Amino acid sequence: MNLMKVLPLAAAVTLAPTLGLAQEAAPDTTPYILTTLLFLMGGFLVFWMAAGFAMLEAGLVRSKNVAMQLTKNIALFSIASIMYWLIGFNLMYPGDGWAISGWLGPFFSATSLEPVGLAAEDAALDYASVGSDFFFQLMFVAATASIVSGTLAERIKLWPFLIFVVVLTGILYPISGSWQWGGGWLSEKGFSDFAGSTIVHSVGGWAALAGALILGPRIGKYNKDGKTVPMPGSNLALATLGTFILWLGWFGFNGGSQLAMGTVGDVTDVSRIFANTNMAAASGAVAALLLTQVLYKKPDLTMTLNGALAGLVSITAEPLAPTLFGSLWIGAVGGVIVVFAVPFLDKMKIDDVVGAIPVHLFAGIWGTIAVVFYGDASFGTQLMGIIAYGVFTFVASLVLWLILKAAVGIRVDAEAEINGLDMAELGMEAYPDFSKG
Amino acid sequence: MNLMKVLPLAAAVTLAPTLGLAQEAAPDTTPYILTTLLFLMGGFLVFWMAAGFAMLEAGLVRSKNVAMQLTKNIALFSIASIMYWLIGFNLMYPGDGWAISGWLGPFFSATSLEPVGLAAEDAALDYASVGSDFFFQLMFVAATASIVSGTLAERIKLWPFLIFVVVLTGILYPISGSWQWGGGWLSEKGFSDFAGSTIVHSVGGWAALAGALILGPRIGKYNKDGKTVPMPGSNLALATLGTFILWLGWFGFNGGSQLAMGTVGDVTDVSRIFANTNMAAASGAVAALLLTQVLYKKPDLTMTLNGALAGLVSITAEPLAPTLFGSLWIGAVGGVIVVFAVPFLDKMKIDDVVGAIPVHLFAGIWGTIAVVFYGDASFGTQLMGIIAYGVFTFVASLVLWLILKAAVGIRVDAEAEINGLDMAELGMEAYPDFSKG
Amino acid sequence: MNLMKVLPLAAAVTLAPTLGLAQEAAPDTTPYILTTLLFLMGGFLVFWMAAGFAMLEAGLVRSKNVAMQLTKNIALFSIASIMYWLIGFNLMYPGDGWAISGWLGPFFSATSLEPVGLAAEDAALDYASVGSDFFFQLMFVAATASIVSGTLAERIKLWPFLIFVVVLTGILYPISGSWQWGGGWLSEKGFSDFAGSTIVHSVGGWAALAGALILGPRIGKYNKDGKTVPMPGSNLALATLGTFILWLGWFGFNGGSQLAMGTVGDVTDVSRIFANTNMAAASGAVAALLLTQVLYKKPDLTMTLNGALAGLVSITAEPLAPTLFGSLWIGAVGGVIVVFAVPFLDKMKIDDVVGAIPVHLFAGIWGTIAVVFYGDASFGTQLMGIIAYGVFTFVASLVLWLILKAAVGIRVDAEAEINGLDMAELGMEAYPDFSKG
Repeated sequence: MNLMKVLPLAAAVTLAPTLGLAQEAAPDTTPYILTTLLFLMGGFLVFWMAAGFAMLEAGLVRSKNVAMQLTKNIALFSIASIMYWLIGFNLMYPGDGWAISGWLGPFFSATSLEPVGLAAEDAALDYASVGSDFFFQLMFVAATASIVSGTLAERIKLWPFLIFVVVLTGILYPISGSWQWGGGWLSEKGFSDFAGSTIVHSVGGWAALAGALILGPRIGKYNKDGKTVPMPGSNLALATLGTFILWLGWFGFNGGSQLAMGTVGDVTDVSRIFANTNMAAASGAVAALLLTQVLYKKPDLTMTLNGALAGLVSITAEPLAPTLFGSLWIGAVGGVIVVFAVPFLDKMKIDDVVGAIPVHLFAGIWGTIAVVFYGDASFGTQLMGIIAYGVFTFVASLVLWLILKAAVGIRVDAEAEINGLDMAELGMEAYPDFSKG
Repeated sequence: MNLMKVLPLAAAVTLAPTLGLAQEAAPDTTPYILTTLLFLMGGFLVFWMAAGFAMLEAGLVRSKNVAMQLTKNIALFSIASIMYWLIGFNLMYPGDGWAISGWLGPFFSATSLEPVGLAAEDAALDYASVGSDFFFQLMFVAATASIVSGTLAERIKLWPFLIFVVVLTGILYPISGSWQWGGGWLSEKGFSDFAGSTIVHSVGGWAALAGALILGPRIGKYNKDGKTVPMPGSNLALATLGTFILWLGWFGFNGGSQLAMGTVGDVTDVSRIFANTNMAAASGAVAALLLTQVLYKKPDLTMTLNGALAGLVSITAEPLAPTLFGSLWIGAVGGVIVVFAVPFLDKMKIDDVVGAIPVHLFAGIWGTIAVVFYGDASFGTQLMGIIAYGVFTFVASLVLWLILKAAVGIRVDAEAEINGLDMAELGMEAYPDFSKG
Repeated sequence: MNLMKVLPLAAAVTLAPTLGLAQEAAPDTTPYILTTLLFLMGGFLVFWMAAGFAMLEAGLVRSKNVAMQLTKNIALFSIASIMYWLIGFNLMYPGDGWAISGWLGPFFSATSLEPVGLAAEDAALDYASVGSDFFFQLMFVAATASIVSGTLAERIKLWPFLIFVVVLTGILYPISGSWQWGGGWLSEKGFSDFAGSTIVHSVGGWAALAGALILGPRIGKYNKDGKTVPMPGSNLALATLGTFILWLGWFGFNGGSQLAMGTVGDVTDVSRIFANTNMAAASGAVAALLLTQVLYKKPDLTMTLNGALAGLVSITAEPLAPTLFGSLWIGAVGGVIVVFAVPFLDKMKIDDVVGAIPVHLFAGIWGTIAVVFYGDASFGTQLMGIIAYGVFTFVASLVLWLILKAAVGIRVDAEAEINGLDMAELGMEAYPDFSKG
């Protein structure tokens, strides 16, 4: 496991220069270690969001489509992990000379990690391990893909969806991500999106919207009278679990996006981000709960869950600068948006199975605008960023969905859809022992 | 996200003073950072307990009440987050001059966080970020409220319950918490409750007991012959998941309560707490498993789960001082208490749906007494603390439940209870696709 | 795992210069704190794997056996916690003079923790808290036992299974573990198994295989024509959740096995391990997904989940040295192994309910061999280690299962098996409200 322990002499040799340096005011390696640790912790928390999306979506689809939804979720995460390594990371951060192996060319080169047993003098001591940064960033692209799978559930074919994921996670997200986080033109313009209300969540939402438009609604969702037919999720306990998982993971999502934990200022900022993130989720949930009670005379659990998520998305563009009160109202507006946006989409006959477009796209836009109230960004710049990401992702996704539709078809046939994708596409059921009501 | 990558010059500038200070033997900021990190990690682990309570309770209620139980859980956590910010934290820690914004008056002032980018010279370098502390403490109050929701499940109305949560998390818990953790009279008397067997768990249990007495048992729970009718939980997989989540979260609950991780002594103590906490949970589970086998000739899964939780509650008042053997027997006694207390409550016709009173109140009292065997506290002082928290919380809760009963009613009507709260109060089902047996 | 424990003198020698230097500039306690933190974080993540196994297995058994499977999982973890404290830890790391209370004799002495408030001068400053190490190691033995419970599900009696767990976690695993991680003969031979592809996963797999052979297949699993009858799992959402939990926990399993986080080199290595671990899981999942599509024309969710797990097991013997591309193909081979091994076992009429033998034994062997490609180990040495662990564990387990079979019987009677273990052995159901299909 750790061979250096087996070789005390070698260890001593390694130690000696370290300690020698220490006497002569050695470079302080603690900030490097702590920031790397932030990425690792943030990374595993954001990884956990993959489980959250899987549970949320499995809980909000009907039981005949649960196994397929689970398959899509574990497959998309796995594909994102591979594509972001193969192309994405280097495409998104082209400016840094870090760790590019180059065997696929200047941009399309698979990411390499630092060598084993990196010496302190070879490390970017003002920063952190590249490997930890890669691990953290990788989890973000997977979140983007998860958003798409929720909207398009219950009718999209597995393989065309996964091909879309390949392009989204390997190329689309990294290109647009580089505009801001890769030090590109939007960051030079002063656009501000701390942890990705636009760069991650809206991008997922735009890709989902494009897909929903091409794919069309589920059979029977909008009846001849123009009425929306409720198709309730099969397992609200799973959906709630998924929401709690996402909430937990979001501390890593926003907190890790501080990108540093080696100083008093940084770790205190991370604390501020944790507290703000929690507040926005809480106020989003309460806002949706109260509003559904007022509007429909009954509180709505699914709306409350989505309200919490919308609060989280809303605070993601700027989780640091607001006060707790700021986070409260920013999150609450997110919750309100969801309650109005879900029926609005239904009115537009855009069938979004889990409410991902209200949560990730609409609240993502709101959160990006809300930066204006607490951050340094101007409304115009924020709007420019929102539009840039929207146009690029929506158009590129639309084209890609149309190509996929023409080439292989993206929708299961009506019989498969009515019988459920689980039996039709997978030949298995998620809950085979239980009779369907 | 990654501005440092974008601005290498700025980064260099930031680094310069750091290194400069280091040369002149700068104050060591590492303990501050590490203790703050303990609060953040502890906090997200205790946050996770909210999901644990939600899953445990959703698994132990009947399927017709699952969606309501989930709604209560996400709502109570959200309300606790807001109330503890608005009033609770400052009420509980009045002595510290930290971070009080004051716009609601001396006590009733919403909590503020430290400014963004706090300088080392402005930080409480002997401690940790206030924001991280607030984040951590906030999660504890939410746990208290979760305890109440379990006991009162399947018959209490949503909104009166949530009003109770507002008062419990904003006022009752903070007032009594301040007696000990706010440096109040009980701490001066020498009362000892490391992580809250009494301050968190018993308080939740007393509030639950008061509610159960006012609310009365579920229809049909105790039949005319005085027999208890079993009403088994609908999903033991969820209940088990909830127990594992709580067990995991408890490492943060007890370990984070060390309140420091910046020295060898502190981090070693945290390790000791982790190992002891795990041992008490394990022995509580084994004790309940063996005892139910002996008593009933069949082991009981629900009792085993509650045995693990009782072990955890039992060790919470003193998870540091005992040996591993000490933790084993303290936890095992907790498991035994649960096995006897559940039927005892039924004999008293106190209907506690998930067994929260045995687990949190009875094992909480036991754990507080057990401090005497390993800690410095005297039996008399511990008893005084137990009684003080009991009288205050029970009486205040009783009054509040009576007011709520008189003002708005706290119990759903019989028809709603028989049909299930999900359809009656929410108009939705947790598992709509499955036929009920 | 921790060879320095075996060599206290060497450690002291190594320490001397360190402390010498340290006197003239206070000893740097930060590495001790950070490594202890790694153990605590790694430990709670591996703890979480207990929940993952429980959910995976509960999801893959039929609904009539779910409560029993949950009972086994929480009981085995609890028993492992107690046995590893009582005997296992000291048996596995006999050389270290640390913290042995001795009240049961030289080997069979329960583990003690360091005193409360350990002073820096009394700490092993070149290492970490013993308590944190114990906590971390404890979680590994529990994983071994979890593997067994999956294979033998749906027909083994509870108590004989738990007696097996007592011996496995208290004696068998610690003895064979000491050969390598306790500084025993295999580590001297140069065997290499970083985090336990063989020492943890194969050992669990061999014990499971021995049990499956003695126990025989479930009634009806292999019909008269020699055909395998599918017995699909009752809840694929839970199985997927379990897989995600295990994936998350594996970051602690492999990352924590770096056993140090106090230097730039160590934390960078941990980052490398995290990234490699994730890649192997992803490629294992994708390989199984693609291969089942090709072989059966339909992708298989259960195989994909097991493919991810097999990828994880495969990278566990050497998660540090490979490149990301290396991790990709090592993990993918693991995924392929599972797809072929599951029907192979069925052909051999070895009934492994959840596929634990393909995942943990076969992929564990593969992973141990794969070390040859990136690590320093020779093929011969790796094979020797694989055989040594296999022979010892398989034979010892076989004997133990035979003794248990002769003494108390290990299989429920046919009626209980057909009706389900939940009602027969526990008298409760996991999902009592739902009609069975």
